[in-house]
Amino acid sequence: MEKLGSTRRTIKCGNLRSSHIGDNVTVMGWVQKKRNLGSLVFVDIRDVAGIVQAVFDEDLNKEAFEKASDVKSEYVIAVTGSVRERQSKNDNMPTGDIEIYADEIKILSVSETPPIYVRDNDDASEVMRLKNRFLDLRKPYMQNNLITRAKTTKIIREFMCENEFLDIETPVLNKPTPEGARDYLVPSRVNKGSFYALPQSPQIFKQLLMVSGYDRYYQIVKCFRDEDLRANRQPEFTQLDVEMSFVDIEDVISINERLIQKVFKEVIDVDVTLPIARMSYDEAMNRYGSDKPDLRFGYEFNDLTDVFANSEFNAFKANTVEGNSIKGIVIEKSADEFSKKKISKLEKFAKTYNAKGLAWAKIEDGEFVSPVAKFLSDEEKNGLVEKLNLEEKDIVFIIADKNTVVNNALGALRKKIAEDLDKIDKSKFEFLWITDFPLFEYDEEEDRYVAKHHPFTSPVDEDIDKLESNPSEVRAKAYDIVINGDEIGGGSIRITDRTLQQRMFKALGLSEEEAEAKFGFLLNAFRYGVPPHGGIAYGIDRLVMTLTGSENIRDVIAFPKTQSATCLLSGAPTDVDEAQLHELGLKLDLEE
Amino acid sequence: MEKLGSTRRTIKCGNLRSSHIGDNVTVMGWVQKKRNLGSLVFVDIRDVAGIVQAVFDEDLNKEAFEKASDVKSEYVIAVTGSVRERQSKNDNMPTGDIEIYADEIKILSVSETPPIYVRDNDDASEVMRLKNRFLDLRKPYMQNNLITRAKTTKIIREFMCENEFLDIETPVLNKPTPEGARDYLVPSRVNKGSFYALPQSPQIFKQLLMVSGYDRYYQIVKCFRDEDLRANRQPEFTQLDVEMSFVDIEDVISINERLIQKVFKEVIDVDVTLPIARMSYDEAMNRYGSDKPDLRFGYEFNDLTDVFANSEFNAFKANTVEGNSIKGIVIEKSADEFSKKKISKLEKFAKTYNAKGLAWAKIEDGEFVSPVAKFLSDEEKNGLVEKLNLEEKDIVFIIADKNTVVNNALGALRKKIAEDLDKIDKSKFEFLWITDFPLFEYDEEEDRYVAKHHPFTSPVDEDIDKLESNPSEVRAKAYDIVINGDEIGGGSIRITDRTLQQRMFKALGLSEEEAEAKFGFLLNAFRYGVPPHGGIAYGIDRLVMTLTGSENIRDVIAFPKTQSATCLLSGAPTDVDEAQLHELGLKLDLEE
Repeated sequence: MEKLGSTRRTIKCGNLRSSHIGDNVTVMGWVQKKRNLGSLVFVDIRDVAGIVQAVFDEDLNKEAFEKASDVKSEYVIAVTGSVRERQSKNDNMPTGDIEIYADEIKILSVSETPPIYVRDNDDASEVMRLKNRFLDLRKPYMQNNLITRAKTTKIIREFMCENEFLDIETPVLNKPTPEGARDYLVPSRVNKGSFYALPQSPQIFKQLLMVSGYDRYYQIVKCFRDEDLRANRQPEFTQLDVEMSFVDIEDVISINERLIQKVFKEVIDVDVTLPIARMSYDEAMNRYGSDKPDLRFGYEFNDLTDVFANSEFNAFKANTVEGNSIKGIVIEKSADEFSKKKISKLEKFAKTYNAKGLAWAKIEDGEFVSPVAKFLSDEEKNGLVEKLNLEEKDIVFIIADKNTVVNNALGALRKKIAEDLDKIDKSKFEFLWITDFPLFEYDEEEDRYVAKHHPFTSPVDEDIDKLESNPSEVRAKAYDIVINGDEIGGGSIRITDRTLQQRMFKALGLSEEEAEAKFGFLLNAFRYGVPPHGGIAYGIDRLVMTLTGSENIRDVIAFPKTQSATCLLSGAPTDVDEAQLHELGLKLDLEE
Repeated sequence: MEKLGSTRRTIKCGNLRSSHIGDNVTVMGWVQKKRNLGSLVFVDIRDVAGIVQAVFDEDLNKEAFEKASDVKSEYVIAVTGSVRERQSKNDNMPTGDIEIYADEIKILSVSETPPIYVRDNDDASEVMRLKNRFLDLRKPYMQNNLITRAKTTKIIREFMCENEFLDIETPVLNKPTPEGARDYLVPSRVNKGSFYALPQSPQIFKQLLMVSGYDRYYQIVKCFRDEDLRANRQPEFTQLDVEMSFVDIEDVISINERLIQKVFKEVIDVDVTLPIARMSYDEAMNRYGSDKPDLRFGYEFNDLTDVFANSEFNAFKANTVEGNSIKGIVIEKSADEFSKKKISKLEKFAKTYNAKGLAWAKIEDGEFVSPVAKFLSDEEKNGLVEKLNLEEKDIVFIIADKNTVVNNALGALRKKIAEDLDKIDKSKFEFLWITDFPLFEYDEEEDRYVAKHHPFTSPVDEDIDKLESNPSEVRAKAYDIVINGDEIGGGSIRITDRTLQQRMFKALGLSEEEAEAKFGFLLNAFRYGVPPHGGIAYGIDRLVMTLTGSENIRDVIAFPKTQSATCLLSGAPTDVDEAQLHELGLKLDLEE
């Protein structure tokens, strides 16, 4: 290994172009590949900006030629030489018009044979990739993702500053929420037997900042949730957290639309037309069975409950009652795409969403074809054709079940069919605000209402009277921003009236003592002058996934955790000394 | 309480100026004060931008007048009216030339009598301030601090982006360091009995990012240390963390000087002349007894060991041996400032730094005056006068002790005297790089060498040979930036050679197994091509203290912890349910 000494980089590999021809340059980077060709050695050198080819000529500098002959993949080298036009240009490389005719090389660091290849699509398993993250992160795909992520947060910050939002840090060591099963706890050594909790969101602190008169706040901040991790969840995730004073829904939505427009334009050069479309929660559920519909394709839901109101077919009849429904999606001119085998697979798929079955019908040679045709009256069949305007080669898939099952199963089916038929234009971005959420959601398990967003969300003014009498009808001043079927952000106007906040807690089944224990320090602040305020929070990981087209959250995070919340690189979490636990006033209690 | 409805703010209170005279405006904010004056009510309204006066005239709008008559301090109101020239201008307020002649008022929120005044210097105790932080944060002083903090990080980010540093997030849930007594631990629920640790710094991850080819990294990031908290420490603190590849010391220092220059210019309009002065560690210790000397005032150390080499005075004689010394600082023309009582106080002060005593001597009426004069020979007295060039009314304070005690006690005394004599120009900023730190520090308690910075710091090239034979002489490629006697940042060029890194671990008394357990995943990465790299980390809290002239770290943090690591606002940390602990495989173990 040689020392850097007085050698200095004059330009990055990936930035060399024809305009540099004739320049004497020094580049530094990793050996991507090397080929010996008689009295020449070709070395591709990679740095953060890209790859450039250097040629070592035995006749120019024998010593450099010999050193270059010995380099291997992933050696770190410094190469000096003159830029010249390349004989066989490579159109696939931005630097493909030129090469460095090299007369000096320093080997700054050697490399053993790397356990995974440093190139995209190396077919290494994700376990291998995560174990060798320092190599995986050298891949162009991963570098592009992290560079796009840095660009995204930079542009967000620019926008927030231009609009007078103040970047204010909130604490990471917080008060645990009573029964906060999802809190990560942190034992205190100074206060033995006491615990902090890592924040699930800075919600209360950002509201306190509004109470304190900071007017507009933002923060890009790590949040934490100790829960079972789905594919695209991480125990620590990053939020863009925003709050503003003296505003109502329209003000928050309008400034966020400008933010979204700027981010998509400046990061990936996509134009977002404003205003962004809006849809009420009810409409989204009715048309797509989802409060985060993907609008890049059709296949809207059709309510068929009326059509089968008098059906003798048990599977339908049983679902014409309150709380149940019969809905279908029409795939036009595509009946031939669905073999019996294929449909049976779709039915299996629907059943994973708890659907009891999947009915279908198609028009073939002018005939109504369906396995359930024999159970249906002519009136029903005609009603169906008429309602859906079914034509030759159209096929309809029908699910009859509890509303939630219909929405989940048919919603998932809608997406699966679009994917199978390749009907999703991946270059398209469909933005949508969902508004008028219900304030409450009925939790069957706990047999009580819970907050659909969180307990600080303000009800819509004209629904406040129904808070006690008809909670399920109360709409919230809440809004989610959905992009291509992913919820990227969500927020609300907050309750700023202590009395209303107390009614809200009561509706959620919290006693005064519980409310005090959980949120006392916010309620107390509300005694001393609270401005109307509201805000939003975005999932930065998810936003960057959308911007980079990544389908795995771990591909947009430098050092992610696995689905079992471990870091394969460092080995975290690990066990610790008993003595260390004793200092915290703790001991292990692992017996079952 | 009234609703915002369709009322919208048109301008911030603090932004109103003469140029707005004649405009119809709506402002929103908190009632700072209210005065009734016959048929007029004057209300000062405060928002994030400042304070403006509104006048309600009974003759203009009786209803508004009456409502305004009823408002109290800290009510949140919206006021609409026309801007007019003020009759009695107030030069102390930026808005003092105008007032709002108001014909509409909405009371958006009422307030009880606040427990602390919302104004600077309210004399509330810090406990009251922290308990009512949402009110304390309304004070202009606190708002200015947090706004300056937001501005500081904004400007830092601009600079980092301009210079192609990538903002990359590193994990918060990390692997615990074996015996890492200062780690905050986080028990894992998914992996019961295992623990994460909160990062003390992202050191290893940022080095991995260099190994991964990210070239230039930065992050403004929370770090954590579970230790006994001194006045200006917090359990969670914010770092600007920086790392660069293909660089040596000069590259890192030069780019950081430009960063410092930009921050001081753009945040507080202070010009920093480059290059910033440098001083070796040895020189700083010799001249100021400190590796973070405050250069805003003189009082340099004078080594008097030679002068007293043959002293018969025991207190001096005993300290002419290796490892001890006799040093003094001269306060010129100031002997009259030091009464016997004052000097006795200074001696007490020095003793808190373990000094055994404090000697002094002055020239008064041409005479050498000192309580220890009788123990000194004429040669010694003359030698002292000559060496220090003592003149009429000069006074010298002398400490003879172990080197570390002399440095600490005389260093502290130097600062105290400067403060007492008001010799520190608070408007002045003195910047200084300290370089050539020793690589190791001898830990008397543990009877072994420990890393002065951290174990990844590279030794100076020409000292590498002494790593085993003479570790105390090995200098590090490390540098600290000191401003007005505070260490604001520090960093180093890192070791990038596995063999050298292993020699370093060995010198620190780590076995191969221990090194592997602690740093294995970094050592492993070093097998596959490491670029030369180095970096720096700044304490953002401390930097903002310097920029705002705050002396309390809690004044630059929105929601700080006390010295016993509690949050007086939320009550964190708290105890948690046994069930919650059980889920984590833990139980309390609090018996002594």
